[in-house]
Amino acid sequence: MLSDLVIENVAVITMDSEQRTVRDATIVVESGVVIYVGPAADLPEGVSERLGQMPRLPGRGRIAIPGLVNAHTHAAMALFRGYADDLMLQEWLTTKIFPIEAGLTPDDVYWGTLLACAEMIKSGTTCFADMYFFMDEAARAVEESGIRASLSVGMGSMAENAGGSGGPGRPDGFGAALARGSDFCERWNGAAGGRITTMLGPHAPYTCSLPFLSATAGRAGELGVGVHIHISETFREADEMRSAYGISPVEYVESSGLLDLPVLAAHCVAVSDGDIDILARHGVRVAHNPGSNMKLASGAAPVQKMLSAGVAVGLGTDGAASNNNLDMVEEMRLAGLLHKATLLDPTAVPARVCLEMATRGGAACLGLDDDIGSIEIGKRADIVLLDFAAPHLSPAGIADLASHIVYSACGADVSAVLVDGRVLMEDRRLTTLDESAIMAEAEARALRLAGRVDGNRTQ
Amino acid sequence: MLSDLVIENVAVITMDSEQRTVRDATIVVESGVVIYVGPAADLPEGVSERLGQMPRLPGRGRIAIPGLVNAHTHAAMALFRGYADDLMLQEWLTTKIFPIEAGLTPDDVYWGTLLACAEMIKSGTTCFADMYFFMDEAARAVEESGIRASLSVGMGSMAENAGGSGGPGRPDGFGAALARGSDFCERWNGAAGGRITTMLGPHAPYTCSLPFLSATAGRAGELGVGVHIHISETFREADEMRSAYGISPVEYVESSGLLDLPVLAAHCVAVSDGDIDILARHGVRVAHNPGSNMKLASGAAPVQKMLSAGVAVGLGTDGAASNNNLDMVEEMRLAGLLHKATLLDPTAVPARVCLEMATRGGAACLGLDDDIGSIEIGKRADIVLLDFAAPHLSPAGIADLASHIVYSACGADVSAVLVDGRVLMEDRRLTTLDESAIMAEAEARALRLAGRVDGNRTQ
Repeated sequence: MLSDLVIENVAVITMDSEQRTVRDATIVVESGVVIYVGPAADLPEGVSERLGQMPRLPGRGRIAIPGLVNAHTHAAMALFRGYADDLMLQEWLTTKIFPIEAGLTPDDVYWGTLLACAEMIKSGTTCFADMYFFMDEAARAVEESGIRASLSVGMGSMAENAGGSGGPGRPDGFGAALARGSDFCERWNGAAGGRITTMLGPHAPYTCSLPFLSATAGRAGELGVGVHIHISETFREADEMRSAYGISPVEYVESSGLLDLPVLAAHCVAVSDGDIDILARHGVRVAHNPGSNMKLASGAAPVQKMLSAGVAVGLGTDGAASNNNLDMVEEMRLAGLLHKATLLDPTAVPARVCLEMATRGGAACLGLDDDIGSIEIGKRADIVLLDFAAPHLSPAGIADLASHIVYSACGADVSAVLVDGRVLMEDRRLTTLDESAIMAEAEARALRLAGRVDGNRTQ
Repeated sequence: MLSDLVIENVAVITMDSEQRTVRDATIVVESGVVIYVGPAADLPEGVSERLGQMPRLPGRGRIAIPGLVNAHTHAAMALFRGYADDLMLQEWLTTKIFPIEAGLTPDDVYWGTLLACAEMIKSGTTCFADMYFFMDEAARAVEESGIRASLSVGMGSMAENAGGSGGPGRPDGFGAALARGSDFCERWNGAAGGRITTMLGPHAPYTCSLPFLSATAGRAGELGVGVHIHISETFREADEMRSAYGISPVEYVESSGLLDLPVLAAHCVAVSDGDIDILARHGVRVAHNPGSNMKLASGAAPVQKMLSAGVAVGLGTDGAASNNNLDMVEEMRLAGLLHKATLLDPTAVPARVCLEMATRGGAACLGLDDDIGSIEIGKRADIVLLDFAAPHLSPAGIADLASHIVYSACGADVSAVLVDGRVLMEDRRLTTLDESAIMAEAEARALRLAGRVDGNRTQ
């Protein structure tokens, strides 16, 4: 599974610390690790000797970038794609999303996650951070698909189903929720040859009491895992927290001690300058979800300010019920456009920064920055190849390649995907998953789930 | 060229006045015109008798929508894609776009327009409104590609190159500019079997004097053509107009008499409620360009207000130098997301409205609403088929199909395109254009043009 591989005559955006772009490069992968990236002429002798026996992947006409990291999603919600759109948030949650989630079985989560993995691989995502329930089945899907993921069980101690997308599911009390999340970590952390890592997933400040967050912090420390949590997704959440406790959601979480752990905070839309100071001081990593925040009308997270303050920011799609796809190429574009539009500054969040957030930033979010996030010697060979022979990516010679990827490409331009050097897709054909079977299962399961809510559907 | 054709077992979003969606339909095209769309069971006898001899296009697993109408672009600027991004508007124009445009030859415009046509067909656009220079060559490209277009020569009477994207080009005086635009209309209006129509293209209020706009209005009336103009793209434009004349750009144009003609106004970002009243009263059609307005940080046009006031609104990509692609599927999504985000209202500009703007709205913008914009009996068969067998469009059974197209699809999901019933693409293969040859020419020409500005490039 940990493959040897050579890609020749490929253009590479390495995203390494020197921001190297090489228009005609060779990439050499051994046992799933990058052992060379650069011009063919500079290949060290020890490496070039061994190239002869290694399998080739075509590089000409392709651009290689680090695999994209989806820093926040609820993968199995792919089953609910297009089921309920253009509604007010509370109506969307209470009349559509909570009722349909209530019918989910473990098998549904397995197939929904497989559907999400197929979609993510086909649009260049090699790693994702997931929070949902029935996560053993999600882990099974990740294991089979060959993708990399950081998985967490959504946990809450307060309101029933208070979270909606990725909500705490069936609350069965403080201890039971934490045990469910911890047991999952013990079963799966480091599984699938290290492709699966885990976090604890307290859902959000408004669904988790302070003692629960403190207990979560303690457990995460014992387990040696990070924490994945939603914080300040909406101004309403921030206002309600301030009314109830006189503090912000970020301050609430800080007061529990949770921020002393490695924390991945999703959204952070409604955060003040003071909140950003807290996030920076604790090294909290933020998953920015421009598509979901726009579609649910939550607002624009202060991404420029967070980056300036030194906060690591990644990009996420959120679940497909609020996006409605898991396409990180599109998410980069939305990040670039949203902030230019809302700050009225055409230099805000330039293309390179979008690509940085989707690769290195995401890797930092998941605590995997030593392993992935750039194409450089010693890192895992999680690599995406885009086919640039398309009218919408022409001409390429005078273009900034990052600009083409962020402002003009789409997920379907991804032609090949490697994780640990293993080819999960080539020429847009998946090697690990049966796309047709997954789509047929997803279709049948979605019809059954929606039928429970809306009555029988046979359209 | 005006084909007969049958598509069976296809799902259709007709966009007709009753907003009919039929999940299992037959579409029958005769001599380029739709003669039936609906369930196979309801086929009139006169039609079903003739089906036997007609050629088939596969419909199963596909969704048919009316061909998308790109209501505002500068097609040949596809040559400048990715050349200059993330800059302040004035720096972008004066140090990059104006200098590179200054080197354009008529042949460059021909090849640049061919590249744009290839890209547009591949992403489901069947008709576009263009304003640029060397338009005879653009018209030649449209004629050869089989696409439909409304073309205009960009004309100005004031500052040199004042417009940048689609600017007035080489100003050679009031009369000469108008003559150039008019002569083009006389040569090309109704050409290519009616696929090419024309407008006069006074560039913008800030580059056209009132007497020039009045003269343009007079000539348009004589020629029986409409007018394509940029109005209030930026708040700066509106502020400067108010400082100089004490009125808004819309009022300035109104005072010239131009709005008594059929007018297609691009952008209308910085328009007041009073301006919207004027637009509505005169039946002005507006091309909304969310991608370009976001990327150049111009702001969000008040689309909801304009629609409520009864203004016909279409969607445009603007030129590829500021977008950076010509993908109308993406443009629908950006329209849906931008207004939710800026109005903080998740019900703003729902999916159906996005699809409406991109089809019927665009047809109205170009004065072609009797001929195109919906799939219904008597209209030209400008039809796009999307392949729905993809993970990011699954499941489909519980989804609103318009939602899937607007919020989840991308241009690459378009698998077949018809204009006048003629197949311009099937299975993503273009039938009228040699994609590879066009990309090679575009590459060479872009390198030469950029070399004139930046010195030799051989990267």
